[in-house]
Amino acid sequence: MIVPRLIERKRDGGQLTSGEIHELVTAYADDKVPDYQMAALLMAIYFNGLDRAEMNALMEAMLESGERLDFSRLPLPRIDKHSTGGVGDKTSLILAPLIASLGVAVPMMSGRGLGHTGGTLDKLESIPGFRTGLSLAEAQKQVAEIGCAMLGQTEEIVPADRKLYALRDATATVEVIPLIAASIMSKKVAESLTGLVLDIKRGSGSFLPHLEDELELARAMIDLGVRHACPVVALLTAMDRPLGEACGNALEVAEAIDVLKGGGPPDLIEVTMALGAEMLVLAGTATTREAARAIMRDAIISGRALEKFEEVIAAQGGEARVVRDPSRLPQSALQKQFGAPRAGIVQTVDPRAIGHGVISLGGGRTRMEDTVDPSVGFVISAKPGARVEKGQRLADVHAQDEKGITAGIAILESAIAIGDSAPASLPLISHRVTAKGVEEL
Amino acid sequence: MIVPRLIERKRDGGQLTSGEIHELVTAYADDKVPDYQMAALLMAIYFNGLDRAEMNALMEAMLESGERLDFSRLPLPRIDKHSTGGVGDKTSLILAPLIASLGVAVPMMSGRGLGHTGGTLDKLESIPGFRTGLSLAEAQKQVAEIGCAMLGQTEEIVPADRKLYALRDATATVEVIPLIAASIMSKKVAESLTGLVLDIKRGSGSFLPHLEDELELARAMIDLGVRHACPVVALLTAMDRPLGEACGNALEVAEAIDVLKGGGPPDLIEVTMALGAEMLVLAGTATTREAARAIMRDAIISGRALEKFEEVIAAQGGEARVVRDPSRLPQSALQKQFGAPRAGIVQTVDPRAIGHGVISLGGGRTRMEDTVDPSVGFVISAKPGARVEKGQRLADVHAQDEKGITAGIAILESAIAIGDSAPASLPLISHRVTAKGVEEL
Repeated sequence: MIVPRLIERKRDGGQLTSGEIHELVTAYADDKVPDYQMAALLMAIYFNGLDRAEMNALMEAMLESGERLDFSRLPLPRIDKHSTGGVGDKTSLILAPLIASLGVAVPMMSGRGLGHTGGTLDKLESIPGFRTGLSLAEAQKQVAEIGCAMLGQTEEIVPADRKLYALRDATATVEVIPLIAASIMSKKVAESLTGLVLDIKRGSGSFLPHLEDELELARAMIDLGVRHACPVVALLTAMDRPLGEACGNALEVAEAIDVLKGGGPPDLIEVTMALGAEMLVLAGTATTREAARAIMRDAIISGRALEKFEEVIAAQGGEARVVRDPSRLPQSALQKQFGAPRAGIVQTVDPRAIGHGVISLGGGRTRMEDTVDPSVGFVISAKPGARVEKGQRLADVHAQDEKGITAGIAILESAIAIGDSAPASLPLISHRVTAKGVEEL
Repeated sequence: MIVPRLIERKRDGGQLTSGEIHELVTAYADDKVPDYQMAALLMAIYFNGLDRAEMNALMEAMLESGERLDFSRLPLPRIDKHSTGGVGDKTSLILAPLIASLGVAVPMMSGRGLGHTGGTLDKLESIPGFRTGLSLAEAQKQVAEIGCAMLGQTEEIVPADRKLYALRDATATVEVIPLIAASIMSKKVAESLTGLVLDIKRGSGSFLPHLEDELELARAMIDLGVRHACPVVALLTAMDRPLGEACGNALEVAEAIDVLKGGGPPDLIEVTMALGAEMLVLAGTATTREAARAIMRDAIISGRALEKFEEVIAAQGGEARVVRDPSRLPQSALQKQFGAPRAGIVQTVDPRAIGHGVISLGGGRTRMEDTVDPSVGFVISAKPGARVEKGQRLADVHAQDEKGITAGIAILESAIAIGDSAPASLPLISHRVTAKGVEEL
């Protein structure tokens, strides 16, 4: 293998063979190919892409660089949900216990906040004592015992992906659909899933700005899933405004608990139910999405979903009492209402401004070594299209001091626009993509 | 400076400011920007290019990373000649002493063989004792004393270019016109030239396969020259066959001496005179190219050019007697004639096959640490278009053993094609490019 010749071929629009990709990724994971050659290849891939066979070879090579969860003795369907990242998106916190309470194993591997988006691990860690750093063996055992574990990507899983991702982040080669698809799917196949539901975010708060890219990502991941006995269903959902009301780690856990108790904001409930219905149909627990919704409603009304969340929290060392008494979650020192500066119709609630705002209040990281304040953030009841009176409460800022409150109000002022006409918002759930094709909803 | 943002901007087709390029290259030369980020940027530049201002900023940043020759107290014009690399091209060996013998300083910095092409340093080192590794101070002193020094790129000159070039070589980002132009011109401006003549090779044996690319390289280097008080004139010359007859280090030195004595093959004489005439006009030594040719002929006939070559060789520790007695140059143990396998018209003499052939006989490197056998190579009198009889001597192989002779004959058999019609060869000198524009010759 002469690496510059492989880079050259991809640079000139040619294809790499599966054998070449496998040898290259394996050598890279073993530190035998230098970062600079891989960086040049990644940029060539940015321009010239990878075809389906190349993408699959990349995914398999990354998968083989590490261990997998072993569920060969677990007779349950195993379903995970993955989102491309958003603001206010706490559906994972709801779906993991909800779906696990219905006899489906949910080995959920999540990430931390990235860019302006929040991360499930950061949210879970706002529960006092909650430990997300499970080993592969601990996760396997917990899934076998209580049907669910919520953990971070361990050292053992797809190390080549971790190394490649860090390089992509440093070389402006993150936004490449086949690389994104192979990266996500390598982790999901390593979880030994029997099905995956994908939530692809659309709009100003999402990573992929064009519908065609979002559909292509869905198709690419579905293709990889088909090749590895892991059927994938993707929903395209709106991220031109935050999902639900709470934005900030502990605030989002509290809102997730609300939904598990039968409450919560309608948009959050609808996206959660739509994703959950796909999970249950993939699991074979329900034959139709309508039936799946009914089963989920029962699990919520009966309290079983909430109990499962308590069980997961307790199993991972967290204070399970937060579920019954969310006031035990970290609380910010100060809260302040934000009223509408004028009467009119809410035009936009900018998710990037809100996401970056949470970080600037201390609720996220600008560097990996930053510590996160779980209590701060926003609760924004205003939604685009809502008619509001002057002074009407649109949101609350949660901050630790007056400086934070002032900053938070300024962020809301710039993020929430009020006008006079009906705004053009994206439909909450616009497309459903399966191996059979794309349905516009 | 956030490097991934700069990579991203270039990736997306934007421009980098001169300040950004300067900061980036300076940090890279100081090992403060990692190779992998530079590699990703280089590949983005491969796809999206650099405009003239970016290219100039890159050149200036590389220039400022090191030292320059200081000729502030030398009242002579200083002219160099640079070729993009070919097979059988020994014009530098002739021009340096010839032009220096006419009162023009020639601080000539050359390279080693690269790919299938030969290198002036390797050729000079076939002269017993010749030392090409002059320091900057030694080169300056020698140019002041005898008007000419022939040296390799020193450690002190444009270290950023050396580091970048090694990275480009390992990441398939060599063939990028603004990077080539900035790399060459950074070295030439560091030589403190008052003019530069560029020999851009065309055809199957050249690095740039398309005429438009060759003209663009000429224009780019002319533009950089204009910005740094170093006027550049470029000639586009044929490299669809070797230049002259000798291909191999000592064989080429012998042929260069032939030309300095008034002999040598007509094509080599013509290219040398054309390049030399441009050098003398740039120097102000002659007002027209015709007058310059007459002056050069005088320098050859009078023996002054040859004496200057003896002087340069002696100054750099070499055995100057090779000039009067070329049999003192290294000789191969065996020589063998190659006769035409059939009657007809010579169609092609493939320069890449011949260049790689010299390497395979031991006359070049496949790895940097290889030692070069100066004596081996080919002397090929056959030129495309020549009518030959069966068995007529077309070439000689110079090799150290029977195995080398057999290999050399096989190389000639595959490199020299004989047919029946007149071949389509490139004109020996096809274009002349100056700041005023392109003249087709």
